Amino acid sequence: MNDREQALFEAGIKLGALYHQYVGAPLNLATIAPMENAIQKSIGVQPYVEDIRVRIDPDRVSAKINKFGYAELEGSMLNVELVVAYGRAKVLVKMQYDEDAEYPLMFIER
Amino acid sequence: MNDREQALFEAGIKLGALYHQYVGAPLNLATIAPMENAIQKSIGVQPYVEDIRVRIDPDRVSAKINKFGYAELEGSMLNVELVVAYGRAKVLVKMQYDEDAEYPLMFIER
Amino acid sequence: MNDREQALFEAGIKLGALYHQYVGAPLNLATIAPMENAIQKSIGVQPYVEDIRVRIDPDRVSAKINKFGYAELEGSMLNVELVVAYGRAKVLVKMQYDEDAEYPLMFIER
Amino acid sequence: MNDREQALFEAGIKLGALYHQYVGAPLNLATIAPMENAIQKSIGVQPYVEDIRVRIDPDRVSAKINKFGYAELEGSMLNVELVVAYGRAKVLVKMQYDEDAEYPLMFIER
Repeated sequence: MNDREQALFEAGIKLGALYHQYVGAPLNLATIAPMENAIQKSIGVQPYVEDIRVRIDPDRVSAKINKFGYAELEGSMLNVELVVAYGRAKVLVKMQYDEDAEYPLMFIER
Repeated sequence: MNDREQALFEAGIKLGALYHQYVGAPLNLATIAPMENAIQKSIGVQPYVEDIRVRIDPDRVSAKINKFGYAELEGSMLNVELVVAYGRAKVLVKMQYDEDAEYPLMFIER
Repeated sequence: MNDREQALFEAGIKLGALYHQYVGAPLNLATIAPMENAIQKSIGVQPYVEDIRVRIDPDRVSAKINKFGYAELEGSMLNVELVVAYGRAKVLVKMQYDEDAEYPLMFIER
Repeated sequence: MNDREQALFEAGIKLGALYHQYVGAPLNLATIAPMENAIQKSIGVQPYVEDIRVRIDPDRVSAKINKFGYAELEGSMLNVELVVAYGRAKVLVKMQYDEDAEYPLMFIER
């Protein structure tokens, strides 16, 4: 396997981990910022992660606020950019909600 | 059911939720603070939670740092104090590692 | 604390644990049965659980099947009956989707 | 990106998802089989998964049984073989506990 293939495998691991670790976490509009921060820092300590940016869509959180005043983190709320470096390879991957497919797509940007 | 029984049931739900939502999350010594903050704020938005304090034991994290420089959050690292209010009842419950039993005990303080 | 209060606290812990451990798990109609079975057996090994029945609503799973042919377990799909015994007390608690509130309610049955 | 790179990215997603979805799940020796079955079937419904085999090490579960008679699923207990097919590419990846590194390694087999 070359460095680029290893980097993409590692990048996939991180996106899968992020998604299934944090989906379900309770949040509201006021706690989006600490949640974004914690997820970024949490996934950021994993091997080969060079950079990570996590955004949670406030409109999608708003739309899911229940009668008790909170929502649960869903894949559709997540917007992630992740740079993984392995050997001489560096890859950028993303997680983004695809409105048409109604699916939180994970894809290789470059 | 009286208010106190309801409050204890709700307090149990929150401790079980906290544990199984966040155990497994990657962290290191430098990311303990944002993780504590996110967990507190996350569980804090749930119904009937009046106060919550989450501490992650840095010594236990240190002891579990792997060769890649991070650890995963375990029940034994968690120290939680939670106040739940339901109707006229208010209860304080805790999660604390019991060294003798080697078990992260959840118990009713008062 | 009396046995009944302890039992309710323990019952809450189990429902919170079940929810936040398994929500997000991929499934489709054909894998509902093994998922129900695994959740039942998993929560069933925890302290003070005397009986547990887990049902996942196939209609709600169907409604959430994405273009890749699967869904993720959500609270609204879960139907749980749990009997917890502590000392001389025995309590029955439930988790059930409340259509009006659009919320997966956890409540004390008796 | 070529098919092989896409396949490796997808394989990484599945291993990361499996790990962070199921780590923390309560189990004992008698419930290893239904847990293996549920994890296999759950990850098996995800896109591009052609084959998956999940084994949970009974010795490692035994070693972690607590005074209440159960353990929690840890990465070190997991043994996974996963085949992902994307376009004309097919890759085999594994998760296996590395005794020397004391780390649940995820790696590309071929």
